[in-house]
Amino acid sequence: MQGASLGYSRQRAGQTVRGNRHRGVPSTCVTGYACGLTKLHGIFTPLLVPQDERGQINEPELRRFVSWLIERGVHGLYPNGSTGEFTRLTAEERRRVVAVVADEARGRVPILAGAAEANVKETLAACEAYAGMGVRAVAIVAPFYYKLTPESVYAYFGEIARNSPIDLTLYNIPMFASPIDVPTIRRLAGEFPRVIGIKDSSGDLAFMMRMMAAVRPLRSDFAFLTGWEAVLAPMLMIGCDGGTNASSNVVPEITRRIFDLTVAGNHQEAMKWQFRILELFDAMLFPFEFPDGFRAGAELRGFHFGRGRQPQTSAQRADRTALTAVLQCILADFELVERPAAGCAPRIRQVETDKVEQVVFEVMRELEKRGVL
Amino acid sequence: MQGASLGYSRQRAGQTVRGNRHRGVPSTCVTGYACGLTKLHGIFTPLLVPQDERGQINEPELRRFVSWLIERGVHGLYPNGSTGEFTRLTAEERRRVVAVVADEARGRVPILAGAAEANVKETLAACEAYAGMGVRAVAIVAPFYYKLTPESVYAYFGEIARNSPIDLTLYNIPMFASPIDVPTIRRLAGEFPRVIGIKDSSGDLAFMMRMMAAVRPLRSDFAFLTGWEAVLAPMLMIGCDGGTNASSNVVPEITRRIFDLTVAGNHQEAMKWQFRILELFDAMLFPFEFPDGFRAGAELRGFHFGRGRQPQTSAQRADRTALTAVLQCILADFELVERPAAGCAPRIRQVETDKVEQVVFEVMRELEKRGVL
Amino acid sequence: MQGASLGYSRQRAGQTVRGNRHRGVPSTCVTGYACGLTKLHGIFTPLLVPQDERGQINEPELRRFVSWLIERGVHGLYPNGSTGEFTRLTAEERRRVVAVVADEARGRVPILAGAAEANVKETLAACEAYAGMGVRAVAIVAPFYYKLTPESVYAYFGEIARNSPIDLTLYNIPMFASPIDVPTIRRLAGEFPRVIGIKDSSGDLAFMMRMMAAVRPLRSDFAFLTGWEAVLAPMLMIGCDGGTNASSNVVPEITRRIFDLTVAGNHQEAMKWQFRILELFDAMLFPFEFPDGFRAGAELRGFHFGRGRQPQTSAQRADRTALTAVLQCILADFELVERPAAGCAPRIRQVETDKVEQVVFEVMRELEKRGVL
Amino acid sequence: MQGASLGYSRQRAGQTVRGNRHRGVPSTCVTGYACGLTKLHGIFTPLLVPQDERGQINEPELRRFVSWLIERGVHGLYPNGSTGEFTRLTAEERRRVVAVVADEARGRVPILAGAAEANVKETLAACEAYAGMGVRAVAIVAPFYYKLTPESVYAYFGEIARNSPIDLTLYNIPMFASPIDVPTIRRLAGEFPRVIGIKDSSGDLAFMMRMMAAVRPLRSDFAFLTGWEAVLAPMLMIGCDGGTNASSNVVPEITRRIFDLTVAGNHQEAMKWQFRILELFDAMLFPFEFPDGFRAGAELRGFHFGRGRQPQTSAQRADRTALTAVLQCILADFELVERPAAGCAPRIRQVETDKVEQVVFEVMRELEKRGVL
Repeated sequence: MQGASLGYSRQRAGQTVRGNRHRGVPSTCVTGYACGLTKLHGIFTPLLVPQDERGQINEPELRRFVSWLIERGVHGLYPNGSTGEFTRLTAEERRRVVAVVADEARGRVPILAGAAEANVKETLAACEAYAGMGVRAVAIVAPFYYKLTPESVYAYFGEIARNSPIDLTLYNIPMFASPIDVPTIRRLAGEFPRVIGIKDSSGDLAFMMRMMAAVRPLRSDFAFLTGWEAVLAPMLMIGCDGGTNASSNVVPEITRRIFDLTVAGNHQEAMKWQFRILELFDAMLFPFEFPDGFRAGAELRGFHFGRGRQPQTSAQRADRTALTAVLQCILADFELVERPAAGCAPRIRQVETDKVEQVVFEVMRELEKRGVL
Repeated sequence: MQGASLGYSRQRAGQTVRGNRHRGVPSTCVTGYACGLTKLHGIFTPLLVPQDERGQINEPELRRFVSWLIERGVHGLYPNGSTGEFTRLTAEERRRVVAVVADEARGRVPILAGAAEANVKETLAACEAYAGMGVRAVAIVAPFYYKLTPESVYAYFGEIARNSPIDLTLYNIPMFASPIDVPTIRRLAGEFPRVIGIKDSSGDLAFMMRMMAAVRPLRSDFAFLTGWEAVLAPMLMIGCDGGTNASSNVVPEITRRIFDLTVAGNHQEAMKWQFRILELFDAMLFPFEFPDGFRAGAELRGFHFGRGRQPQTSAQRADRTALTAVLQCILADFELVERPAAGCAPRIRQVETDKVEQVVFEVMRELEKRGVL
Repeated sequence: MQGASLGYSRQRAGQTVRGNRHRGVPSTCVTGYACGLTKLHGIFTPLLVPQDERGQINEPELRRFVSWLIERGVHGLYPNGSTGEFTRLTAEERRRVVAVVADEARGRVPILAGAAEANVKETLAACEAYAGMGVRAVAIVAPFYYKLTPESVYAYFGEIARNSPIDLTLYNIPMFASPIDVPTIRRLAGEFPRVIGIKDSSGDLAFMMRMMAAVRPLRSDFAFLTGWEAVLAPMLMIGCDGGTNASSNVVPEITRRIFDLTVAGNHQEAMKWQFRILELFDAMLFPFEFPDGFRAGAELRGFHFGRGRQPQTSAQRADRTALTAVLQCILADFELVERPAAGCAPRIRQVETDKVEQVVFEVMRELEKRGVL
Repeated sequence: MQGASLGYSRQRAGQTVRGNRHRGVPSTCVTGYACGLTKLHGIFTPLLVPQDERGQINEPELRRFVSWLIERGVHGLYPNGSTGEFTRLTAEERRRVVAVVADEARGRVPILAGAAEANVKETLAACEAYAGMGVRAVAIVAPFYYKLTPESVYAYFGEIARNSPIDLTLYNIPMFASPIDVPTIRRLAGEFPRVIGIKDSSGDLAFMMRMMAAVRPLRSDFAFLTGWEAVLAPMLMIGCDGGTNASSNVVPEITRRIFDLTVAGNHQEAMKWQFRILELFDAMLFPFEFPDGFRAGAELRGFHFGRGRQPQTSAQRADRTALTAVLQCILADFELVERPAAGCAPRIRQVETDKVEQVVFEVMRELEKRGVL
């Protein structure tokens, strides 16, 4: 299950490894930044995990998916995120996913590996293992199930950061886990060089700005990534370094384009694509149980994800078919897939519908003007 | 209490008034847009209300404040908003506030008058009255106290829009009132020409984009205003038409500047000011009961607001003094007021503090590199 | 609008009035308890308000309703509560409702009058007016719209209690208004003899016990009333003094019976009725906008409430008809109204349905035992 | 890790095991109830887990604790609950905890084993294993981290119930996991004989009554247990079959007494103890991170729990010492432990304090009567 068993050699990632405690990074540095590694930036795909008929991880398909994503321009890969349903994998499976992804990526893009385990000791063991696989950093979600106070969130991340052999990013997802507040983020960023960034999935721009204002004066190397692509372009426009966005499993070309357009300062064009990705995101997020809508979207791009681990009723399976047809229509508008044979019903934003409604509206207004209404 | 009794003539607003049912707008048009009025845009100040020693509305000070704001560049005025504590005024006082503001503005800027009363009948009576005072439109907050379903929110606004003699804007403030969801907004925008915009105080950019995507294809005249200046610049960058922002009571120059910079496409400069207004906003919002922090801020600009209508304990009054000193320091950095004589403690974003912390951090990193730590 | 104009004389309430500041109670005492008035107890009906065709308060029907309730055993009346839609009445209408109710009650039962107005000054004026009408006490809901901190909630009630000429009860309804927490309740109870009780509509028994534990050692005269009849019997069983329950507008006989049974210590029988009132309460609460379901229920008892002040769509009016038929079936089971001519569909708790399901279940279990399944 | 390896023979639990698919129960029955097993009832302790110096499960102390609880009258044991921090144990540790507890209990009391694992397949494997250890039933918490719809919650439990070799109880804890709503509970109870009860930790009596009303007509064998001892006595008074209460780790005598008193119909006496346990529960719940306050309480009874797995800051450790002294004072009032040498500060409910405040209050009232105030 180690990188080595996959024929993977860490040297491929361009890093010389010496020492023993801090495996995966040279002993002469502790944080990646201090070692000349660049700040995290760009779109990291929180990888969906394909399964085979028996419900096991489908490794060949995972490899094919990883390479397809890299070819379509994602800047990095993020296995074991919420999109990767890390909580529904066993501890062994989580290790295996990272090993396979790291091996397939072969250093072409950096890897941010989700490393949260049952407790700090297990998490540190995962950090050790992932460091040995050459990942760029680990991502640790805030404690979940129990809702902890900021002091305990600090204690948790502090204990990990103090002992981790590898750089780590905080992962704030308040709808699922204990929130990480701004003072705690500043405290962690100020005390632990190992903490090199935060992924925030709240979608709250004011919160993102508060974090930036609190941390950037201390740490120019600290990365701010958004996990909520409903606001990807605005987040990049206000200064985020990138995103880890479930939609990049489905439309890696588009999330990349939004990133590139904002970097180039072309905000108007970025916003056009943002409105389109918002429609897609909403269609994958709300009518499905997360992340099944994203799985359905990625299946339309030609991958086999198999049945998810959360059981579905027959009613849900029927719904899924209908909802997937809607996704196909949206993706067809992007010219990324064919339209379904049965055609597409007009959607709210399509010109045809709007025209009818607008004509009706104009007629009403005209009639009003003339005093008929 | 009518405009006339204040020596105010509606003609000053450049409108010819004929007919009797639709007072305030020419009988040949129903919606302002159809009458050639421009779409609402820019920063509308949700006016704080000064009180005198006896707890009555301080009309001379209100007039002085209104003119000061207009001179500092606000695009419009919005009496009887949440910042204006409309729920703490009597029905008579709400009328009086609008009458005074309209009279003082003398058509220099358009007025958006909060017109929500105890029920639809009373609200329509207020709409009539405000139309007679020459306001540009009324703003109606979603039903509050009871939390209503979308169908009831639609029924409520529909009943008002069907009978209002004046254009109206919806006011969505889900932390205080029943939320107005996207389908309801689209439905109202599609059916009622009188509904010409929405003020949204959720601060949620994805929600704003969803509204725009749903309504703009139908109604190019529909205005989107944000009530959450924590994200004012980003909201303008994604296409909002303006804002109704409590902070514009305190720093009208700055909210205007942010608006102008985004209109000019100078997003980078706009964001610099956005970060600064965020610090001020947070300092006025969180440690005080709303809107007392904004009152404290506006007092520093030279106005007398008197005691608010929500009683305070002596502990709160002591806190207020200390918190106001912090506000004075922030405003002094804007070069809008003097620094307090007692000086200013360093704040989180100030260079001095940050430098110390950054030096500590750099030293730690250096020691790590050298293997000392 | 005063009691006198209704031909009402305060002497009817059996109280001699002297002095001038504290109208409505003898000048030799301040709190009702100190004057020999008994602690509030029993079921107080938060009165629905009938309206006529023109949308005005239907006073004759209100009088008929008041007397009907008294005859059916309610212990007291509570005009201007949430059920009475006090926020949808004008300030004048609220006064009128109390005047009519007080006049009609003629001292037969005590009155707890909702007196919350736009601000403390207006609220105190209402307290004065209601004291002059001979009500037993006023009820003041916590500040709403703005969500206040405990310190501000304390300041608000303290200011009122310090100046009120009449006893008052706190009204905690956290789903609609700022919550009143236990330390604040204790503080108010400990400092202000005028504060003689609390109505709590949270339905949270632990919270009720925490209040009792905090206040009872200080104030044996302090009344605890529950506004959530979903748990009326349990609340009485743990020591509440009574309730102000919307359902008592519809089934005053049953809420009285539950009260009497718990006072008599017959908890088992009380719980039987509790389960039945829970079914009715849920059927009036969830499918309707509050309080329209209770209005529909009371209409079935023979009163005309007219259209409510919150507009309804035609879809909502159609739903209301169907939902009212369900209410009629539930009330018919209580033998309080006739069954609808169209008959009643089986409800979840009815024996017929359950028997079928139970038979199916038993058969399945039997088949399992025999190894067939 | 199997029962056998602990020298435990399932026959001790008085069950003959035949067949192969349904290990742990005779092949001639599927549900425990059909096999003559009684309905779950009484207080099941959700066991805290002691750890040794190295952070490993302290098995000798766990055994000592189990026997101590049984001797003090708990009706059953519930390892791997939220109090047992099942999410902070590895999959192997969870198995080990149940094995040790089952072996130590030796059939003296029934065991309800928390069996939720990463996914359905792993959960079913745990069910198999626990069936082999002779536990009475398993408890499965609703899916957590992701918040699922009722349809998915149904699908999840349905898949488990369809395949489980052992009876199971649902575990509803909406503050930590996806809520299980009443229709879903009814659906599961109606379709799956294996589902024999629910543990509900919402503390909501209305919800409990709604569940009972929906399920009891179908399933007389279905058990309702409350996990919220703040309302233990009221829940028992309205008809709950028992509870799984963290406080029973600390005061097993008292939770047992409350159960016995309510069974005997002595509600008044039960409520006296309920008020006292509420004070203790609040003191263990709110100021600590759950379940550390309960661990602190159980340590005062003479057990060594070691450091928990959630790290603590030094500030938290200092707080813990002070808070534990308060717990000691409360437990001393129960005459279960000695008072701390440093003495006890008066608490809110203590007679001494109350007397002072009451005297002050009476004096104030007297002065008012005399017109001095």
